[in-house]
Amino acid sequence: ATHSLFLLPGDGIGTEIMVEVEKLIAWTNAEGLTDFSTDTGLAGGAAYDAHGVAITDEDVAKANAADAVIFGAVGGPKWDDVPYEHRPEAALLRLRKELAVFANLRPAICYPALASASSLKKELVEGLDILIVRELTGGVYFGEPKTITDLGDGQKRAIDTQVYETYEIDRIARVAFDLARTRGGKVHSADKKNVMKSGVLWDEVVRNVAKDYSDVELHHILADNAAMQLVRTPKQFDVMVTDNLFGDILSDVAAMLTGSLGMLPSASLGAPDPATGKRKAFYEPVHGSAPDIAGQGIANPIAMIASFAMALRYSFNMVELATQVENAISAVLSDGLRTGDIAQDNCRTVGTEEMGAAILAKLKA
Amino acid sequence: ATHSLFLLPGDGIGTEIMVEVEKLIAWTNAEGLTDFSTDTGLAGGAAYDAHGVAITDEDVAKANAADAVIFGAVGGPKWDDVPYEHRPEAALLRLRKELAVFANLRPAICYPALASASSLKKELVEGLDILIVRELTGGVYFGEPKTITDLGDGQKRAIDTQVYETYEIDRIARVAFDLARTRGGKVHSADKKNVMKSGVLWDEVVRNVAKDYSDVELHHILADNAAMQLVRTPKQFDVMVTDNLFGDILSDVAAMLTGSLGMLPSASLGAPDPATGKRKAFYEPVHGSAPDIAGQGIANPIAMIASFAMALRYSFNMVELATQVENAISAVLSDGLRTGDIAQDNCRTVGTEEMGAAILAKLKA
Ligand SMILES: CC(C)[C@H](C(=O)O)[C@@H](O)C(=O)O
Ligand SMILES: CC(C)[C@H](C(=O)O)[C@@H](O)C(=O)O
Repeated sequence: ATHSLFLLPGDGIGTEIMVEVEKLIAWTNAEGLTDFSTDTGLAGGAAYDAHGVAITDEDVAKANAADAVIFGAVGGPKWDDVPYEHRPEAALLRLRKELAVFANLRPAICYPALASASSLKKELVEGLDILIVRELTGGVYFGEPKTITDLGDGQKRAIDTQVYETYEIDRIARVAFDLARTRGGKVHSADKKNVMKSGVLWDEVVRNVAKDYSDVELHHILADNAAMQLVRTPKQFDVMVTDNLFGDILSDVAAMLTGSLGMLPSASLGAPDPATGKRKAFYEPVHGSAPDIAGQGIANPIAMIASFAMALRYSFNMVELATQVENAISAVLSDGLRTGDIAQDNCRTVGTEEMGAAILAKLKA
Repeated sequence: ATHSLFLLPGDGIGTEIMVEVEKLIAWTNAEGLTDFSTDTGLAGGAAYDAHGVAITDEDVAKANAADAVIFGAVGGPKWDDVPYEHRPEAALLRLRKELAVFANLRPAICYPALASASSLKKELVEGLDILIVRELTGGVYFGEPKTITDLGDGQKRAIDTQVYETYEIDRIARVAFDLARTRGGKVHSADKKNVMKSGVLWDEVVRNVAKDYSDVELHHILADNAAMQLVRTPKQFDVMVTDNLFGDILSDVAAMLTGSLGMLPSASLGAPDPATGKRKAFYEPVHGSAPDIAGQGIANPIAMIASFAMALRYSFNMVELATQVENAISAVLSDGLRTGDIAQDNCRTVGTEEMGAAILAKLKA
């Protein structure tokens, strides 16, 4: 059976790092390890330049039809002034919503070879392995009304609406508890229930779900305190589940702690299809399009390659091959190869292509 | 002229650390350095136990009438199950709103003696001096609708509303720019304009205000990136202005960086009265009520005392005395005195009372 991948490299370094994933796919296909068909589309500024929109309906349809979407990154100063609804990020938001990939998994792991690259003291982050489970299709990102109204006299009023319903919280909580079972058995649920009604409902629903998981420890934490505690003693956390906006911020803090921002992948999963059991899935690096270094061949392809490994694991159940790719990444780092963003004394700094090639060479060996 | 202070010690360690401020006031009054009249009220759980509400109308009226409110901290597990509208935090939210203290100043400074207490590498935080200017009376904290609706079938819908109007953003931006002028001359404005309409308006208004401050550098930063950058290279920041919810989280991150959480004060200021020029003002430590250590006499009173110093500076223009109090704090730390939360090798750990007394002794000297 052929598996279909839809590639959306996007803008900036997105296009450069996607090339390394394509080489990997070509090799796993050639070896008969996989049987991927691939197609490529445009997203973000690239789509705007070509078609005047952040992503075309055709490409959204292709993303919807694919077994998995592999996404690079979007945005850059070139598109700072495009109309709001066509800004590069709109591609991402539209894809998340239309694919209904509500469960965003953002692992923050500290690669041993990079522990000293963190701004935190080494002993606080060495061995760090947190999984942020972020709700991705609800909350203030999509709630209506979302408007700016002119009140006259130079005054405007802007409104965003945070909306959550029970079922949305229930399903993301179950994803978090299920994953905690396969890991440290601990879930922190972060909200601002002391200020927000959505936090009150969030906490109520998560506590209810917890009753079905008596083997998993549940801790409530206020989102502001969660941000603090991530900086203070990150290793106290295993799985953290939170809403779309808090997840945006907390996952960035967690990622930064690891010293490995250019290394971190993410997966966004939909609900299993009742008929086939298949989930819509969307894989992307946590980092952005890094316009400042785009086009120089120096971007770190590891987060992109690790996102592909997540696709192998979560969409295609190729756990062994996924682990091999992840081990290849670790091995290359242990060998002392680094891209510029993680340059270190006594290590060799290489470009995007050489890093990708080194990982592929490890896989072949 | 007598100046009036309204003291709201609150719960937990709030009551213990307020005692040290009262001793300070008694001394400055006795020395003729100040002429404060003080009155004390109940807030949070303490008010709930006495009156069944988080704060009484009488105490709100007294807070409104005072020249400055000095607030301790509220909350604790004892009140986890009180009705939502009477939870301890409701006192804080009501006071902020009714006093209209929209400008929350949260300095995050790293005391030299404590640089090694940060979870960040010492060189990244040594000398850190960031001022977070948080909008405090608007946004998702107070926007309506703010409801939970029962939809039947076990489903509920929770709604919170983020609302900002031009004038609210304009006035907080001016506070930030004015303060930047007295400091490093740099403002970062943090929002999520790539996702939120309130962010779009926020950025538009801040840019407009910036035109009146051509001597101040303005940088836009996305709130998620701001959280990251605070962890990565905090010293790049001088003043950061942001909305109520982002300010809640970002100021906690900034506070945690310093390793001095128990040391950080805050001031919340209203608009100057058109007739008298006076601003409503509310001073409180950044830390909470720490129920786990309450009643043991070991809480760190420094943030509370430093909040009083901010009152001297911002409400009473007693800049010299404020500086003396701050210098007394630094001197005591340099002498090697520590409370338990900042205990260090080769330092002497003391309780709340001894720390307060030592600071007072330095002032006298
Ligand atoms: C680009 C932006 C819309 C996006 C978000 O806010 O979700 C990004 O920050 C992320 O975390 O994926
Ligand atoms: C106690 C709580 C309501 C409050 C807030 O969210 O503003 C606190 O976290 C703060 O930062 O002062």
